[in-house]
Formats: sequence, structure tokens, C-alpha cells
Amino acid sequence: MADDRKLTPRGEDFAAWYNELVQRAELADYSPVRGSMVIRPWGYGIWERMQRALDDMFKATGHENAYFPLLIPMSFIEKEKEHVAGFKPELAVVTHAGGKELEEPLVIRPTSETVILEMFGKWVQSYRDLPLLINQWANVMRWELRPRLFLRTAEFLWQEGHTAHATAEEAEEETLRMLGVYRDFMENWIGMPPITGLKSDSEKFAGAVRTYTCEAMMQDNKALQAGTSHFLGQNFSRAADFTFQSEHGTEEYAWSTSWGVSTRLVGGMVMTHGDDDGLIVPPRLAPVQVVVIPIYRTDEERSATVAKAREVEARLRDDGVRVKVDDRAHLNPGAKFYEWERKGVPLRVEIGPKDLEKGNLCIARRLFPEGEKRKLFLDEAEALGSIPARLEALQESMKERAKARREANSHRGVTEWGQLAEILEGEGGFVYTGWSGDPAVEARIKEEFKATLRVIPDPEFRSDTAPARCISGEGAAAHEVVWARAY
Amino acid sequence: MADDRKLTPRGEDFAAWYNELVQRAELADYSPVRGSMVIRPWGYGIWERMQRALDDMFKATGHENAYFPLLIPMSFIEKEKEHVAGFKPELAVVTHAGGKELEEPLVIRPTSETVILEMFGKWVQSYRDLPLLINQWANVMRWELRPRLFLRTAEFLWQEGHTAHATAEEAEEETLRMLGVYRDFMENWIGMPPITGLKSDSEKFAGAVRTYTCEAMMQDNKALQAGTSHFLGQNFSRAADFTFQSEHGTEEYAWSTSWGVSTRLVGGMVMTHGDDDGLIVPPRLAPVQVVVIPIYRTDEERSATVAKAREVEARLRDDGVRVKVDDRAHLNPGAKFYEWERKGVPLRVEIGPKDLEKGNLCIARRLFPEGEKRKLFLDEAEALGSIPARLEALQESMKERAKARREANSHRGVTEWGQLAEILEGEGGFVYTGWSGDPAVEARIKEEFKATLRVIPDPEFRSDTAPARCISGEGAAAHEVVWARAY
Repeated sequence: MADDRKLTPRGEDFAAWYNELVQRAELADYSPVRGSMVIRPWGYGIWERMQRALDDMFKATGHENAYFPLLIPMSFIEKEKEHVAGFKPELAVVTHAGGKELEEPLVIRPTSETVILEMFGKWVQSYRDLPLLINQWANVMRWELRPRLFLRTAEFLWQEGHTAHATAEEAEEETLRMLGVYRDFMENWIGMPPITGLKSDSEKFAGAVRTYTCEAMMQDNKALQAGTSHFLGQNFSRAADFTFQSEHGTEEYAWSTSWGVSTRLVGGMVMTHGDDDGLIVPPRLAPVQVVVIPIYRTDEERSATVAKAREVEARLRDDGVRVKVDDRAHLNPGAKFYEWERKGVPLRVEIGPKDLEKGNLCIARRLFPEGEKRKLFLDEAEALGSIPARLEALQESMKERAKARREANSHRGVTEWGQLAEILEGEGGFVYTGWSGDPAVEARIKEEFKATLRVIPDPEFRSDTAPARCISGEGAAAHEVVWARAY
Repeated sequence: MADDRKLTPRGEDFAAWYNELVQRAELADYSPVRGSMVIRPWGYGIWERMQRALDDMFKATGHENAYFPLLIPMSFIEKEKEHVAGFKPELAVVTHAGGKELEEPLVIRPTSETVILEMFGKWVQSYRDLPLLINQWANVMRWELRPRLFLRTAEFLWQEGHTAHATAEEAEEETLRMLGVYRDFMENWIGMPPITGLKSDSEKFAGAVRTYTCEAMMQDNKALQAGTSHFLGQNFSRAADFTFQSEHGTEEYAWSTSWGVSTRLVGGMVMTHGDDDGLIVPPRLAPVQVVVIPIYRTDEERSATVAKAREVEARLRDDGVRVKVDDRAHLNPGAKFYEWERKGVPLRVEIGPKDLEKGNLCIARRLFPEGEKRKLFLDEAEALGSIPARLEALQESMKERAKARREANSHRGVTEWGQLAEILEGEGGFVYTGWSGDPAVEARIKEEFKATLRVIPDPEFRSDTAPARCISGEGAAAHEVVWARAY
């Protein structure tokens, strides 16, 4: 059945727009289990491309994949005291199995530090067995009753990297290396350039010494924490009693890191690039980059345009383009246009009888420069030859557009509380201020404006002139920081 | 630390050999959660190659991946009455989450028919939306207190295909198509050629109309059910109230199938190809196909042999070979040989100072024809040029060897109960007999010999002359069937 209803416009209700888009572009759906979602083939196809790209990057930096158990004894989670305080309220607990009550309850992993470092301790004897560089692709569970598809669901898919090192320096280096991998991926695959830097103590991962983060800006000017990389010091090694014999013969606790990104990235992609017609998928992530639609009235026209569509498909496939011919007979071309625009396919090739006569093809672009027309009528050879370069250019321009929007909605040099209030309660965005380091200031801003300290930015993101005083008016600024409302 | 202890020989204690091998080849390890395992990078690397190959085959046959929830409401499992009877004793149950007791218990999926067909029902309106061809890569849980690594664990990784069709014929065709895909994969990737055919009613999947199976023979002559494909009729559609409008305008229940293979295949690979020195990985599945080991005493020799090893690595990589140089300085060559033989790397290239002088390389083969020597000393160019073809030939010969062993341990034309008893309680293997179709015969054979009806074989596996009478002595044979003890 043709679905040609309009989405709620972003400007009217961003949350409604997002929810409608995710479901009607067939990215995901609600499941019968409250808090969990179903990822449909179009959404999963995008996630698969994200996985493949990240996995290649992890392997290129020396990591190997492994798999650890879904269920973790409650006693393991309780070993690291900050960790248990952070995660206990969100746990799903298995109390019965195999028809009996369990002696000890098992929790569905909310994250796997505790069990993974336990295993590392079994495998590592000496510094020669280090570093240990492991990644896991898995599902995790953090109980959630107000789910938002991809952004906040009880169950989600992610990767969690876990590494162990002989020295603090090496572990810190690894933490930053993976932050860099995430940033590179977000910029060059999702076209969603983040600000990177450090989390404050109140926002860091439960049990970490330091948490580094990638914070991206969505079209409603809210922040999305898109990926984090944690330097765990010896905290989890100590809890798991994971020691190794050092080069000097001493017994020491290993230094560990962990880092993760999740299916939340699909939500970030939607909120970075979608428009009122639907999604726009960056070409490198698109399961279909070009959809070819034959347009006809008579049977004769149908066979001629479908034949040409197959030719075009073969040619583009040879050029390494992911292409699909939509020759469904029960839908008219308009319905197909709507559907593929909503799903965000970057380019559409239309082939009608007149195009055949003239030796032309029509390329309709999902995103095109202001002032230009969506459709280009080009000589067939020229049209086809141009497609790989058009896809690459689109990928680049999506990144640049997102970056420009982020910067246009960043407010630097904010020194007055009233100004902070006005921005956070008004148009939103990233607000750069000075901060003394006092957590009470964070608590007050959270209470008054529902905003949080997103990141203490890395040098390249800092303002040329950073405020000298804390935004609270009390004390000197220890750091320049970024405040925003967030997902 | 060098691990040069011998494995328990297969002939002495096959189960002990298997367990030692899996752990000492670093395929998997026991986890702190009873019944669950940890898949280590070497084992996971093999599983990843299995996944990639299968996924390509699924996509080539028109399937798309998606993801459904881990947790299923208990009431869903209970909708199909045979299904719940089959799975209820093995369920792990979540009763508490987010700090509260749940109103309805949720079970960790033992398989996902119930929830997937519920979603299909939401997505499908008419015959035009069919067939729906979906696959999911996921973890599942079937409670198990006597785990065997890869073969039987509470949690395991698998893929589960789920498809819906407008007609019974089309669904049956799909069921057989996927059985064929599994067989092709097992033969040509794992080198583990199975017998295919139908399960008897007492052995079929809980809720299926018909279950087709791939039964492979292990080196201890026991059967391994390596993959199954189910024709579900309208059973699960009816339970989920999944209907569609047919071409004739009537409302009908959809016809569905499901099919799955799991990490159990890794165990099958071990028990098909391993020997008393360790694993032998079929080249197409090997994360490392060739390991290069420099052999030296002096620093000068070290730098010359390592340099040559890097050259060899680059050359083989260019030829598309997965290659690794083992230049760890703290292990002697013997320890490295043991380790890589245990892990099953198909070929080893040794480079010593004498080889450099002569322009030779030594190729040591993990598996080689009887009567030949393990090591070949060849001219460097000839040695390197021969490697891709050697890997292909090895792949093929592993399959042929397994097939020959399967046939050598198949006993056809068995008509006497005493003969059946002697084989099943003696050397084991596949025993072909006539069977009347009476489940009481199955029950008796299970009770007396701990053996089951593995498969009613497809025509190509049937004997030229099939027995006319049932093995029980009572009644005519309705089918020729295969009996065996099984994992």
C-alpha cells in the first residue's frame, strides 16, 4: 500500500518527526516487550555497514574479536563499588532457569568489564602476554521504561572493546587511539563530526578513572553522546584480582581500558541528516546508494524501460555502486519516489520512454545545493559515469554541512549566567563557558536548565580566548567546558 | 610459557581429547557462569569466517538481516502448545528488572519464532508483501548444566532464518533451499559432508510440521546434528494470528519456515578434522593459513631470517593468503611449532640461515598424504608460488577424507536386531535399517542402545537395496532410516 502521508515537520515537533521517520522509513519498530525494539532490514543494513567499517578499523589497530557470556553473576557486578552503584538500578535479573530457582541471581550484562577482566586474569601470566586487545560485538541490557528507538532502549546492540596493558601510559594511549578511531568513523562514515574531550567526574563511566567522549550535535541543537572511551586505571583489575608478572619480576595489577559505540549511532545519523521528507543516508552507509525506477504506461514501455534499468544496474554494479531496480508493478512511480526518499537513498535514476528516445537519464538527488533543481537530465553515458563521484561528493558535503551547523549553533565566550539560561532555555546548542571544577555548578545547571556538562574539549575544539572565570561567578575557570541539553 | 604437553590421544578418551584441544588451542574456555562459555579470538576468528560465508550465501538467496528482542514474554512462548512443551524446561527467566518485580516474566529467547511471526503479522498486509525472507544473527539460551564447549552450552551464538510465504509449496521449497545451502557450506567450507533428510516426528523441532537435518559423522563415529531447516506450516502463524490477504481476496494464515546453525559447527569442525597433535582448520576457515617462523641463533641470523619472513609475508598477502609471521623472541622454534600445530594452521614456512644460503624455504604441512614427509624443502619461488594451490588442494582433501571415513563407518542393509545392537554398542557409526514408522521402535532403541533415529535420508544417501522389513522385525519398512548415537 502506498504510504504518502507527510511526516510531522521537524520544526513543529522534532521528537514526533524522529519517531515517525524511524518507523516509516522501516528502520525499526516497537516490539511486544516494553523497552525493546526490532531493527528492521533497512536499519540493520545500515548498522551492518557501520559494523563492517568499525570492525576493519579495530582490526587495523591490532584488536581481535571474542565473545563473553550474556549472564554475569550479581557478585561480579558488585566487586567494583562505583560500578555497581552506577548500573544496579538498570539491571535485568534472571532468578529462575531450567525450571528451578538459581542459587545466585544472574544479571544480563549491562557492560562486560567485570567478567572480561576475570577471564583476562586467567589468560595472562606475564608482561609478555600483554597488551591484550579484545573487542566484542554483543547485545546489552539497561532497563528503560521510556524507550526511544535507537536512542534509548532496554536492549541495544554495541561493540565493547576491552584491553589490558603493562603500564598506565600504554593504556592511556590506547584510550585516546580508540577515541580517535571513533571520531574518524563518525566524521567520515556518518558525516556526524563530534567534539571530543574529557567527561567531568560526575558524567564519567561508573568505575573509570577518566572517560573521553564524542559529542555530536543534532538538528534540534541537543547533544548526543555518540561514543566513549574509558581509561580504567587498575580499578577493574583490582576488583577481578587480575595481576601479571612485570618485566622486573614484580606482581602488578594490569591497566585496562574499555570503549564502546552502539546502535544509537543510527539514531544520531537520522537526527543529523534527516529532513521533512525522511532520512538521508550517507552514501558509505547506504545499503542502496542508487535506486533505478522505470516509468511506463504501456506494456511495451514497461519492457523497454525495465530492460534499460537492468542495463544501468549492471553498469553501476560494475563500478562498485550498490544499486537496486524497483520494478514493482503494483506501485506507481510517485509512490516509489516517496518510499525511497523517506528511506534516504542518496540518488535515484528515472527512466521513462522519452529518456529512452533521447538517450538521456534523469538523476534525482536526495540532497542538492540550494538554488539548484533536484532533477538533472543528462546524456546516459555522462549520467552513469558521474555517479561514483557524485556519491563521494555527497558524503563529503554531508559532513561539511553538519559541521557548519554545529559551529553555527555553538556559543563561545559565554560568561554570564543569564546568557547561559537564555541559550539553554531558548534555541539550545553547545555553550562554551569557564568552569571551576566544582560539581555543585553542574548540579545547579542540571536542576535549572536540564543541561549537563557534555565535555571538557580537546585543545583543537577550545575557543581562542577561554573565559577566565567560572560561569557560576565563583572562582577561576579551571577548564573551558561545553554545556548542552542532551539525549 | 611454552605449552608442549601432549593431548590425551583420541583413541584413549575422545571426550577428554576434545576438551583439552578446545581449551589448549585457545578456541574457547569455561566461564564463571555455569553452562556458559567464552569464545576466544582463535575460535571466534573461525566463527567469523563461518558467519561471513553463510551470510553471503543467505544474501545470495534473497535474505536480509534484522534484529529481534532478546526477551520474549512467557505468554508468547505458550501460544504454540508443542513449542512450549519442547522449550519450557530449558528456559532462563527474567523476573526482576529496573529494581522491580515484572508483572509478566520474560524469557531469554531459546529461539524466536513466536516474536518474529508476531512482527511479520504487523508488517504484512497482502500477498504482495510476501515472501518475507529474514535472517538474524543472535545469542540464544537453553539452560544446560552439563556443558560441552561449543557442543552444548546454555548460551550459544547462531543464526536463525525466518521466512513467510503465500503458499505451502513455496515455504517447502524455501525449507529445502536452505537445507541445501547448509549442506553446501558444511561440505565446501568445513569439509564436513553431512547426510541430509527428514527427522522423524519424535525428533523434529517443537512446533514444526517437518524438520530437515544435516547429520555429520564425528571421528568417534557419533552423529552431530549440524543444522536443521523446518517447514512450520501455518502453526506459528496461527499462534501469532499472522494473516494476509491472498491474491483471491481471502484472508489466510501465512506459511512459514525457520532454519538455523550455530557455534556448534566449530565443535563439529574440531571433531571431524582434529588429530592427536591438535586441530586442523580447513584453509577457507583458517584465520591464519600460513605461519612463517624465522629460525636463528645469532642476532645477525635473526635480522636476516626475520627480514626474509617479512618478504614472504608480503608476497603471500599479495596472493590473497592469510599469513602471520611469528617472530616472538622469547619462544624457541619448537614451542612455536607446537602452538601453531595445536591451533591447526594448515601450512608453516620455516626460514633458517641455511635456507637463506641455498635460496630455499621449508614448508611444513599440518596434514600430508601417508607415506610422504611433513616437510618439503623447495626453491623459494617454487615454494611460494605453490602455496595457494596447496591450500585449495588441502581443503578438498579434508572433505574427501571426511566423506570416506563417514562411508567406511556406515553400515548398510542391517536387518537383524542383534547386528544393530552389536554395532551401536561396539564401534558405532551410522546404521541403515528399515523402519515401520512406529515411534515405539525409536523409544526401544533409545532405551536399549542410547541411539536415536538421526535421519530418514534423502534419495541420494539411500542404499541401493533398502531393507523390506522394519528392524524391529514387526511390519514392513516404511522408510530406510539411519540410527546412531549422537551429540
